[in-house]
Order: sequence, then structure tokens, then C-alpha cells
Amino acid sequence: MDYAAESLRLHAEWRGKLETVPKMEVSSREALSLAYTPGVAAPCLEIQKDPEKSYTLTGRWNTVAVVTDGTAVLGLGDIGPEAAMPVMEGKCVLFKAFGGVDAVPLCVRTKDTDEFVRAVELLAGSFGGVNLEDISAPRCFAIERKLIERCDIPVFHDDQHGTAVVTLAALLNALRLTGRTPGGVRVVINGAGAAGIATARLLLAAGADGVVLCDRQGIIAEGRDGLSGEKAEMARLTNREKLRGTLADALRGADVFIGVSAPGTVTGEMVRTMRKDPVLFPMANPVPEIMPEEALAAGAAVVGTGRSDFPNQINNVLAFPGIFRGVFDARAKAITGKMKLAAARALAGLVSDAELKPGYIIPTPFDPRVRDAVASAVTAAVR
Amino acid sequence: MDYAAESLRLHAEWRGKLETVPKMEVSSREALSLAYTPGVAAPCLEIQKDPEKSYTLTGRWNTVAVVTDGTAVLGLGDIGPEAAMPVMEGKCVLFKAFGGVDAVPLCVRTKDTDEFVRAVELLAGSFGGVNLEDISAPRCFAIERKLIERCDIPVFHDDQHGTAVVTLAALLNALRLTGRTPGGVRVVINGAGAAGIATARLLLAAGADGVVLCDRQGIIAEGRDGLSGEKAEMARLTNREKLRGTLADALRGADVFIGVSAPGTVTGEMVRTMRKDPVLFPMANPVPEIMPEEALAAGAAVVGTGRSDFPNQINNVLAFPGIFRGVFDARAKAITGKMKLAAARALAGLVSDAELKPGYIIPTPFDPRVRDAVASAVTAAVR
Repeated sequence: MDYAAESLRLHAEWRGKLETVPKMEVSSREALSLAYTPGVAAPCLEIQKDPEKSYTLTGRWNTVAVVTDGTAVLGLGDIGPEAAMPVMEGKCVLFKAFGGVDAVPLCVRTKDTDEFVRAVELLAGSFGGVNLEDISAPRCFAIERKLIERCDIPVFHDDQHGTAVVTLAALLNALRLTGRTPGGVRVVINGAGAAGIATARLLLAAGADGVVLCDRQGIIAEGRDGLSGEKAEMARLTNREKLRGTLADALRGADVFIGVSAPGTVTGEMVRTMRKDPVLFPMANPVPEIMPEEALAAGAAVVGTGRSDFPNQINNVLAFPGIFRGVFDARAKAITGKMKLAAARALAGLVSDAELKPGYIIPTPFDPRVRDAVASAVTAAVR
Repeated sequence: MDYAAESLRLHAEWRGKLETVPKMEVSSREALSLAYTPGVAAPCLEIQKDPEKSYTLTGRWNTVAVVTDGTAVLGLGDIGPEAAMPVMEGKCVLFKAFGGVDAVPLCVRTKDTDEFVRAVELLAGSFGGVNLEDISAPRCFAIERKLIERCDIPVFHDDQHGTAVVTLAALLNALRLTGRTPGGVRVVINGAGAAGIATARLLLAAGADGVVLCDRQGIIAEGRDGLSGEKAEMARLTNREKLRGTLADALRGADVFIGVSAPGTVTGEMVRTMRKDPVLFPMANPVPEIMPEEALAAGAAVVGTGRSDFPNQINNVLAFPGIFRGVFDARAKAITGKMKLAAARALAGLVSDAELKPGYIIPTPFDPRVRDAVASAVTAAVR
């Protein structure tokens, strides 16, 4: 199918992928008096007395804002806030379909970090949580950090943490399948944007201390010229082997490749220099860093991509709906590292030893157990 | 029925009066690829090329933001943004039920006019229009004016203009019933907040040039001490008879009383000083400026209130859903005086000469003709 043409046709037919639908009829004076004036004054006054009641008397407990500035949309880049809206609406559809979460798509017309933060902060009383989406690095790091400081609701940049959680889940199972443990492997992550850095952090938290992070200039190492901000911090936290050089240098002798970068950056040649039975997650979309058949031909034991038409789709939709479901059910005030680890382990745990095989290391988005497994793990990790 | 207790019980049961509901299933890989990645890239790129396509490829064409800062909620006053949310959700319910408009409730945590304006302005790419709600005067005037200047979408403060439209509709029919014309009458408006001032302006635009506006200090007249801003402007535009004094002084010899003020400010005594067959719209909620039975006993020919349990409910829900329906259908960039007049006349026109009587001067919110009559009139007035 020509997805582009058919999707365009459908978007013109849908004219918006979401509706706001009342939960009650207002077709009588009485119904109107209860859902609106004069009855509505009573819940208003209750919330005025105790603002926490906004979680029991309005939709706040179950509503997430999906917010972007349109600067890093899919693989399309900085296409602007309005042009990002079809993705935000799509994300909201997934929140509801896979997490039962009501979601409101918002695109913000500024690239100024502080203005963006202030606008979202001012709206925080309307929502139970904020899902940041498709914001370019390194701005996304400052935006998320400031919003977490200033908001009284959980803030989650899915391109960072959703990707990290699902990647860790897939990695845990790939390691299980190939008889490795997180502590004993070299994991090369190519791409030091939002997804790459967050994945590196979560892998470290999971005990995978052999992470090597690469960007377009090669291995991120202490002392490399021009490193600042997040990358400088990652240079300190990763690369305990003190490697230097290119991605190819990093891959020589590595166990795992995780790509959140660009098509064609990995060759069969490079795969053949990795350790025996390497694990490859080339997740660039829509064209991966190396095509699965080429990676397998070069000796890969397990391959996962971002695509739905290959086995082992490493897809954020496995994580964010269940994470917010759990956060909202527990009324958690933040989404912690502990919760992300718990979500990844729960996802990985859905694949039993008997089922685990190179073509099945991670559940599909349509596995009906995913939502509750992730949500329960997150809820349990709140304590 | 004890509306307060029952409404509180229902709000705790509903936990939010709205849901965001996807228009399509995403229960297969193919469906996911069309509503989300990779297919969604195609509509994104179309909008990037031509941002106007956000009106045909996303829900923007049919989505209004219902925005408040919680400073003037119902008759409750400044109860704060979170406490205003049940009203905003209710308003969104009415938008959908009576106008087919998707609506998103937003409460903004600032009382700073410029911050509020900036936050809403930054979100304007997400919506087809903005409905301001329950913002205290005089801040509401500056906020609306600045947003109209800075946004490329229609901005409408319903407490001003919705009230004005419905009041004018009721007034036109009350005058028709009592054999008067707008140009020949003295209309005393008590209350010089958002609703009073906007109603005065719309009445003037409709040719009712005998408007006298009063506030707590009495008649607003040129030269009165301490008048500034909107009130000073109204002193110039209204009161062509150059009356001075109290509300009682204004009512002596007046044809019409419109109250958007406080309970009990008008007595039967005052009604008896008005011209023969006076028209009274005491619209303070929930307790009117004078109870209908008292006004009728004092000689009123027609009485309309804000309440659903008396005849002639002058209710904004008669206007805003149809106005936005028409604005969205026509993709109007602003809501003009011409459109408001057209909406009022269309509403009034739904009551035929044969039907018109003291107990029926305005349709009920449940009259199925209201939405299309108002929307068509607004659409026609765009040209």
C-alpha cells in the first residue's frame, strides 16, 4: 500500500482524528442545570476549597497534554507547529486506544525555550500530565528539566523516555536470548539526540555500564573537542573503556548496536567486526541504519527496528500509554527512573522463556496484556 | 431538586464531563500506519507547504479552546483556574451538544494580562477559535482586544458578546410585542462589567441609541468623577439624554431595564416609575434584580431572566454554539459586529408574530432550529 497517498486521503476525510465527546446528555433543562449552571457551582466551590479535588471532580485525573513546538517531527525535522499537528493528534489517538487516557494535542508557536516552558506551566492546572513530543535536542532537555521543576504534574518527553523504556525492554530480552547480562556487554548507541541520550541514561540505570555513545563526529569521549551540555555529561558517564574514534571503531568488539540516527550508517562489514552473535537495533525511521536482512547475513543474532513490517518492532506505543495509565491510576507526581525501569522489565517479562526467539523479543502493540503490565509495574514503582 | 448536591454527586461520578475519542480504530498495523507513522508524514508535509491545510487535514477547523483564568466564574467570583474547570468543561459540553463544535477546556494560572495573552497566542495554531470565559472586567477587555490583534483565528469573549447577542434578540422581540422600535426607547442597563458594556455596544449598533448604562455609583455620564477606560468611553457613547443620578433616576421614564448586576437592585416601586408596559430583563443569576412576579405586578409587560425555571430564559447557549458553528463553517477570521447583529436577528426571527407573547419572546435552548438559524445568519454575514 502507498501509505503516504492513502494516509493523506484519510486525513482529508477525517478532518481531525479526535472528537471531544460529552459523557452525558444535556437535552433537558434538568440535565443542563446539573452539568452546567446552576448545579456546576457546587463542584467549583469544592475545588476552590481543596484544589486536589480537581482530580476527582474534573477530567484532570485522566487527561494528558501532548505538546510540541514542531521542531523535530518524526524524521521530518523542523516543520513548524501546525504541520506537527497530525502527529500530535495521532499520538492522542494512541493514548486513548492503548491507554484509556484522554489526550489534548497542543502545538506551541515559539522556539524560545523559556516562552515554551512558561506557556505549558501556565496550563498545568488543566491537565494531569504533560507529554512533550518532537522537540529538537538540546532544547528538549532544558524544556523538560524546567517543566519538571515548575509543574505540579508529571512531565514526560516521550522521544527520550518512551524510546529508552522500549529499547531497554528489547535489549533485556535480546541479552536473555543470547546468554548475556547487562553488566557484561558493550552497547554502542549511535545518535546523541533526545532518544540516544535518554536511552544511554536508562541503560546505565539498568546496570548496562558498557555504554558507548556516538554522534556524527564519532565516539563521545572525555576530552573530545567541542562537547558541551548533555554530551559533556554523557562523556563522563559513558565509555568506561575510554574508546576514541569513529562509530566503526566503537562497533569493533561490541555486543550491541542501538541506532537512533540515520539510514545506512552501519554496514555489514561493521557488523562482522562486532562480537559473536551481536544484537542490532537499527531504529532510524523509515529506513534503518542497516536493513535487517543485511545485518542477519553479517551474523546478527537478533535484529529489532522501528518498523512494523519487520519482526521486533521497537515502538514507543508499547510504553507511553501504559506509563501514563499507571501514573494516572496512582496519581504519581513525577515519572521516575524507577518507574521507567519497572516499565521496561514488565514489557520484557511478557515474553516467556519458551516464546523468546530471534524473531520475537518484544510484544506487539496489539498484545492486550501490554497496557496493564506496564501500568501495574509503574503503579507499583511509585511506592 | 437540590441541584448543588445532585450536581456534586454527578461530577464525582463523571470525573470529567468530556472524553477525547478517536474517529478511527487503530487495531491493526495497517490502521496504525495510516493514522500514525509512517503515513502521517504525508499530511504533515502538506501542511508545512501550506499552513492553511491545517484546516482540512487536522481538527483545527472545528476546534475551539475555551479559556479562563478563573477570575470571574459564574456568580462565584475569583475562585482560581482549577476551580473554574467544571464550568469550562460544561461549556465544552454545550459547544458539542448544541453546535457540533469540538472544544478543549483550558485554565490558565496567571492574572497577568500580558502573560495570559501570550500563552493563548502561542497556542493559536492548535485551534480554529478561542472562546474566552469568566475573566474579570476590565482585564477581559484588554485580553480580548490584544488576542484579536495577535491571533489569526477568531477570538470571542462569550460573557460579553454571547450575552449581548441573546439580550438583543430578546429585546427585539419584546419591542416588537409592545409596539416599539429600538430607536425610540430608553434602555437602562445596570451593571457595567463585561456583559453590560458589550450589551450596550451591540444595542447601539442595532440602533438602540437611547441606552443608559449604570454601575454601582449610578448613571455613567460624561464628567462623572473617576471614570476611566471602557467606562469613560461608554459615558461618551451612551446617555444621549445626559441623565445623572442613581439607577432609580435612570429608570424613571425608561422603557427597558436590563440587569447584569446583583439580586434585589430593582424594586416594584422603581418599575412603577417606568413608562407604560415596560420591558424588564433582570438577568442576575441565580437571583434576579427583581423577581418576575413582582415586576409583573408592578406593570411589566414582558419579563425575561437568566433562569430556566421562569419563562423567557435569556441564555448564552442560544448564541455561542451557533455562532462558532457559523464561523467555523465559513472559516471566518473574526467575529464581527455584523455577525453578532445577524445572529441576534436570526434568533429573534425564530419567534413568529403569531407565536410572540409575553411568555414567549425567545426560543428555548432545546429548539432544534436555533443552531442552524444562528449559524446560517453568521455565515451569511461573513460576506
